[in-house]
Amino acid sequence: MIIIMKPGQEVTIQEINERLSGKVSVFTHGNRVAIQGIDRDGLNEQELRAAERIIENHPAAIQGSREFHPEDTIIKTPNSLIGGDNFTMMAGPCSVESSAHVRKMAAVAKAGGATVLRGGAFKPRTSPYSFQGLGEDGLKFLRQAADEFDMDVLTEVMDEDHVEMVGRYTDIFQIGARNMQNFSLLKAVGKTNIPVMLKRGMSATVDDILNAAEYIAAGGNTQIMIAERGIRTFDNKYTRNTLDVGSVPVLQKLSHYPVIVDPSHAAGHTEFVTKEALAGVAIGASGLVVEIHDDPAHAFSDGAQALKPEEYQAMADKAFAIRDLVSPAVEVVDA
Amino acid sequence: MIIIMKPGQEVTIQEINERLSGKVSVFTHGNRVAIQGIDRDGLNEQELRAAERIIENHPAAIQGSREFHPEDTIIKTPNSLIGGDNFTMMAGPCSVESSAHVRKMAAVAKAGGATVLRGGAFKPRTSPYSFQGLGEDGLKFLRQAADEFDMDVLTEVMDEDHVEMVGRYTDIFQIGARNMQNFSLLKAVGKTNIPVMLKRGMSATVDDILNAAEYIAAGGNTQIMIAERGIRTFDNKYTRNTLDVGSVPVLQKLSHYPVIVDPSHAAGHTEFVTKEALAGVAIGASGLVVEIHDDPAHAFSDGAQALKPEEYQAMADKAFAIRDLVSPAVEVVDA
Amino acid sequence: MIIIMKPGQEVTIQEINERLSGKVSVFTHGNRVAIQGIDRDGLNEQELRAAERIIENHPAAIQGSREFHPEDTIIKTPNSLIGGDNFTMMAGPCSVESSAHVRKMAAVAKAGGATVLRGGAFKPRTSPYSFQGLGEDGLKFLRQAADEFDMDVLTEVMDEDHVEMVGRYTDIFQIGARNMQNFSLLKAVGKTNIPVMLKRGMSATVDDILNAAEYIAAGGNTQIMIAERGIRTFDNKYTRNTLDVGSVPVLQKLSHYPVIVDPSHAAGHTEFVTKEALAGVAIGASGLVVEIHDDPAHAFSDGAQALKPEEYQAMADKAFAIRDLVSPAVEVVDA
Amino acid sequence: MIIIMKPGQEVTIQEINERLSGKVSVFTHGNRVAIQGIDRDGLNEQELRAAERIIENHPAAIQGSREFHPEDTIIKTPNSLIGGDNFTMMAGPCSVESSAHVRKMAAVAKAGGATVLRGGAFKPRTSPYSFQGLGEDGLKFLRQAADEFDMDVLTEVMDEDHVEMVGRYTDIFQIGARNMQNFSLLKAVGKTNIPVMLKRGMSATVDDILNAAEYIAAGGNTQIMIAERGIRTFDNKYTRNTLDVGSVPVLQKLSHYPVIVDPSHAAGHTEFVTKEALAGVAIGASGLVVEIHDDPAHAFSDGAQALKPEEYQAMADKAFAIRDLVSPAVEVVDA
Repeated sequence: MIIIMKPGQEVTIQEINERLSGKVSVFTHGNRVAIQGIDRDGLNEQELRAAERIIENHPAAIQGSREFHPEDTIIKTPNSLIGGDNFTMMAGPCSVESSAHVRKMAAVAKAGGATVLRGGAFKPRTSPYSFQGLGEDGLKFLRQAADEFDMDVLTEVMDEDHVEMVGRYTDIFQIGARNMQNFSLLKAVGKTNIPVMLKRGMSATVDDILNAAEYIAAGGNTQIMIAERGIRTFDNKYTRNTLDVGSVPVLQKLSHYPVIVDPSHAAGHTEFVTKEALAGVAIGASGLVVEIHDDPAHAFSDGAQALKPEEYQAMADKAFAIRDLVSPAVEVVDA
Repeated sequence: MIIIMKPGQEVTIQEINERLSGKVSVFTHGNRVAIQGIDRDGLNEQELRAAERIIENHPAAIQGSREFHPEDTIIKTPNSLIGGDNFTMMAGPCSVESSAHVRKMAAVAKAGGATVLRGGAFKPRTSPYSFQGLGEDGLKFLRQAADEFDMDVLTEVMDEDHVEMVGRYTDIFQIGARNMQNFSLLKAVGKTNIPVMLKRGMSATVDDILNAAEYIAAGGNTQIMIAERGIRTFDNKYTRNTLDVGSVPVLQKLSHYPVIVDPSHAAGHTEFVTKEALAGVAIGASGLVVEIHDDPAHAFSDGAQALKPEEYQAMADKAFAIRDLVSPAVEVVDA
Repeated sequence: MIIIMKPGQEVTIQEINERLSGKVSVFTHGNRVAIQGIDRDGLNEQELRAAERIIENHPAAIQGSREFHPEDTIIKTPNSLIGGDNFTMMAGPCSVESSAHVRKMAAVAKAGGATVLRGGAFKPRTSPYSFQGLGEDGLKFLRQAADEFDMDVLTEVMDEDHVEMVGRYTDIFQIGARNMQNFSLLKAVGKTNIPVMLKRGMSATVDDILNAAEYIAAGGNTQIMIAERGIRTFDNKYTRNTLDVGSVPVLQKLSHYPVIVDPSHAAGHTEFVTKEALAGVAIGASGLVVEIHDDPAHAFSDGAQALKPEEYQAMADKAFAIRDLVSPAVEVVDA
Repeated sequence: MIIIMKPGQEVTIQEINERLSGKVSVFTHGNRVAIQGIDRDGLNEQELRAAERIIENHPAAIQGSREFHPEDTIIKTPNSLIGGDNFTMMAGPCSVESSAHVRKMAAVAKAGGATVLRGGAFKPRTSPYSFQGLGEDGLKFLRQAADEFDMDVLTEVMDEDHVEMVGRYTDIFQIGARNMQNFSLLKAVGKTNIPVMLKRGMSATVDDILNAAEYIAAGGNTQIMIAERGIRTFDNKYTRNTLDVGSVPVLQKLSHYPVIVDPSHAAGHTEFVTKEALAGVAIGASGLVVEIHDDPAHAFSDGAQALKPEEYQAMADKAFAIRDLVSPAVEVVDA
C-alpha cells in the first residue's frame, strides 16, 4: 500500500514509522509512505484521516514505482549527474588490460564526452577456461586512469564477497545480466551507499528487472540505474542480442530510475553499435555505456563489438546532437 | 552464382541470357549476372574469360543481395521517392472508415509531411467475427482522398484473387505480417509492376524476410520495400511487440531494398509510438508508416495505437529533424 | 455469448436461429447456442426463460471452445477415426517424389499402423528457387497409393484457388504453419466439407491457433484438427524448432478438436524424431504425423528429418504401447 | 584438445599431467586426456606417438562432453543411483514449511517411489517482500524427514557463503535457474564433493548450460546432473514456461550427465504437471523432480503447481510404467 499524505503530516509519518518498523517494511519518500505487509485495515483512525489517497493496487516493486516516487531519481557521482534532464556518456574497454591501456582508453572516452569510465576487472565469461579478468590489480589501474581524467569508475562486481573490496575502487557497481537475479549479490550491494547499474537479464521482463532492483532498494540503497543491453530472441544470426529499445520508455513510465542503453552487448558487432546507440538516444535513454578499444582484433575480450576511437568520437557527436533534439524525453508522471 | 563481368561485356551477358533462360533462373543488373541452378562449371570458356569475379557463396535471396545489386533501390511512385537518401513519411488510419474520415486523415497526414496515405480496406483480423474492412468501397474512398492531396496510396492486399482489383486503386501493395510467407500471394504481386511493402512476420528472421522478398523479385517485380513492425518475444505486457530496430541496419547491409519502420504495430500503445518512431529514424530507416486517428477511442480497429493529429505532427517534426542529423545513414557496400 | 438451454427447448433454439440469422452469427450444438454480436440484452423474455445458464465471458474462438462443445470432436474419414479415445498414425514422405516411391512409402506407413498417408504435392519452400512439388501429378500418385493400401490422404493446400482441385484428391486438407493466418485460405477450406489439419504457426500462441481454426469453423466446416509442430524460440542449434508438448493438454482443455503432434518438423533431425514422437504420445496427443523415407540422403525435401522404415516401425510400436498406458488421456470438461 | 591414448599409456598420461598441470588445465578420464590452453603443437614426440586420436574440434565444455567421457555419469547418493539405466523419482514440497509437514510429504514422496526428498529452505523469490524460506531450521527439518524415510536430500543453495552450511545437510545441491550463471556459486560447489543438480536458466541454450556445468567440473566436482524446467518463450498464458522436452535427448547426446525433468516449474499449473512429467519420462529423462503438497491452496510458495498426494501417486505409477517401456533410452555414443 502506498499512502499519499495530506500536507503537513510529518508527525504522522514519523509515528507510522515508529509503530510499524521492524514488523513490516515501511519506506517513506516526501509525503508518501509505502508499506509492505499490511493493507489499509492495518492503519489506525488518525492515520487514515491523514491520508489524502491510498494506492492498494501498486506494483510489487513498490519503491521503484512512480506511484511512490513520482520524480526522476538523479544520481550524483563525483563527476556526473545521471538521470532527469542529464545525459551521461560512459565508455571504456571491455576488460582492463593494463595500466597504460586503460589510461589511453580513458583519454579517448573523455574526449568523446564521457564522464564515466567503464572497465571489467572481474569478467563473467561463459566458459571457465576464458580470461577471467585482472582482479584487484585491474581495479587499481582503472581507478588511477579515472582519477587522472576526472572521471567516475563503473565496474562489475560478481560476488558478494567482493562487494567491500570492489567498493573501495568504484563509484558505480555494475551488476551483470547473468547476475540480475543473484539475490544474495543484490542484497549485498543494497547495503552499501554506492550507486548501482543493474543490467537487464537476457530473458528478464520489465517486471523482473524492477523486482530485481527492488532487492537493492529494500536494503536501503536506492541509487539505482537500469541498463537495457539486448534480450535473447529467435534471431541472433547478425546481431548478438535484440536491443529492446521499446523497453526504455516503458521503464521510464513505470519507475523513476535512470535508464541507460548498452549498444555494444546488444549489437555485438562494431558495424551496428553506433546505429543502435543513436536509436537508444532518440528514444530517450539517460545515457549510453559503450565499449571502446584502439585495437579490437587484439582485445582481451569482446573485441568484435568495440568501437575504435574515431568511431566512438563520431558516434558521441551524433548522440549528443540527437539528445539535444529529443530532450527532455522523460515527463514526470504524477500518480 | 553471381558473375561480376569485366567492362564492355554486354554481348556476353546477352548470350548467357539467351543460352540459359528457360533452363535456369538468370537475372541481370548492370554488369552483374545472377544464375540460380548452375555453378561455374556450367559456364563456357568465353563466359569465364568475361568474368572479373564469380561469387559462389551468396545468400539464397540472390536478387535482393547487395552482391548482386550494390546500390540502394529507389522506388518512384507518383508523389514519392523511397530509399536511398530520401526519407518518406507514410500515415493514415488503420481502417478506411468512410470517405469523409479518410479525407480528414489525409489532410492531417499531408500536413505532417507524409506523401503516402495508408489505410486498410481488407483487414486481417485475428478473429473472424471482428470488422473485416469496407472492401472495394474502402479502396475508392482511399484513392479519392489520396488524389485530393497529391498523395500515394498504400493498402493491404490479402488475397491473390484481389491483386488485380486492389492494383487498380493502389500505388503500393502492402503484404501483412501474417501473409509474409503466403507464397501464392507473393508470386501474384511479383507478376505486377506495382511496388510492394512487405511486412516482417512476427517470428521471421532476417533471412526469412529476404527469402520472402525474393518470391516477389523472382516474378519480375523488384520494387520492394521491407517494413520492420516488431517481433514476438517473451515480453509483451507493456508493448504489443518488440521493435527490432537492430534489424534495420542489418537489412540495409544485406539488401538494397528500402527499410521502413512501423512503430504503431510495434508499440501497440500510443504513448510509446512516437518514441519508437524516433528510434527508427535515428537508426537510419528510409521512412515511417504510422497510424493516425482523430478519435482513437472510436476507431474501427487498433485505436489504442493511433496517434492523434497533434501527436503525429509533433512526432513528424522531430522525425525529420533527426533524419537530417543522421542522414545519409546508408552507405553503399561494394561487394 | 453461449446459452445453455434447459432441456426440451428445441423450438426456442429454432426460433432464435430464425430471428437472428443473417443479422449476427448464430451457431448451435445440442442444447447450446453461441451468438456472436449481441449479449443477453439482445434476448427476449421467452429466450431468457429458456436458458439454464448464459456464458458471457467466453473465448473469441467460440465454436472451438469446450463451453460451446463439451465433447471431443471425432473426425471420421474413410479409414480413420481421429480424436476422442482413438489414436491415429499418419506417415509418409515429405514430398511425393514419384508414383513408385509414394506407393513404397505407403506400404511402410501402413505396416507401422498408419491409416493416413501424408505427402506434399505443393510445397511451401523458404526460397523460390527450391523444389516446389509435383503439383497435380503428385496428388494423383498420392491418391492411388493411398487407395491401394486402404489409407486416407493428407496433403497440403497452399492456395485458395487450389482448394477445389486438391479437394478432389484428399481426405484431409493440411494448412501449413506459414499459412496459419492466411485468412482467405482458411475461409476457402471452411466452405468445404473436407476435414482440415491446421498446423500451428511458428510463433502462434494457443489463442492465435484457436482463432485461426475459428475462421474455418465460421464457414461451416468444424471437422478440424490441430497440429503442434514446434515453435520458434531462442535455441535452434540442435533441433529445428522447440516442440511445445505442453500446448497439447492446454489445447485439449480449451477446445474439443483433436490435437496431433508432428515430431519431424519439431526435431528437424532424425536422431531426435522418435523421442519427440513418444513425448507427444505420452502427453496425450490424438495422433502423430511423421515423415518417412527409405533413402533420406536423396529425399527431394527435408531428408534430414525423415525416419527410415525400420526406425519408423520401431517408433510406431513404442508409440502404440505408450498410448495404451496413458489413454484415455482426454477427460471431457463439462462447462 | 582431447587425446584418446593408445592402450597401456598410463605412464604417458601421468607424465603429461606432471608436465602441464599448473600451466594449463589438464583433465583425465580413463585413456582420455583433455587439455585446455594448448593444441597438438604443445605435445612432444613421445606424447604424439602415444595418441591414437586427437580431437581438436571439441565443445568448450570439454569435461562434460561425450568425446571426453563416453559413458553415462552415474551419481551415487546414499539411497539413489542417478543416471545410466536408472530412473530416479524426486519429490517434496516447494518450501519446507515445518518439521511435521515435511515429514508428511516425505511419506507421500516415498510411497510414490521417490528416493530423493526435495524442499526449499532458502527460496529465490522474484520479490524481496515474498517469503524467503526457513533458513537453517528448514534444512534440519528436511534432513530429519529424509533420514526417517531413508531418502536423500535435495535442496537449493543460493549463496556461496552458504555452501559449507547447506552442505552439512544435503546430499545434492540444487542450483536454481536464476543462478545458472552465478559463476562464483558454481565455482564454490565445484570445490565440494557433493553432487549438484544444475537447473537450466530461462533463456539458456544447451551450450550455455553445458558451459555452466563446466564451471562446476573445472573445480573438480563432476557429480553433476542437469534439470530441464521449462524455458521462456512468447507463450506463457496457460503454462508458466515452455517445457523443452527436445533438449533432453540433445543434452544426453552431447554430454554424459544425467538429465532430470522438472514438470512443476515448466507447467506451473497442477492440471498440466502430470502430463508434462510423462512426456519427460517418455523422451528418456533419468528422473523427475516434482513438487507435492497436501493443501496446495495454503502452500507457502508455488501452490498452484503442486500435485496433491493422490495425483502424485497416480503420476508416479504411470511414469515408472512408461520408463519400463522406453528404457534404456540412452545409448552410449562412442566418439
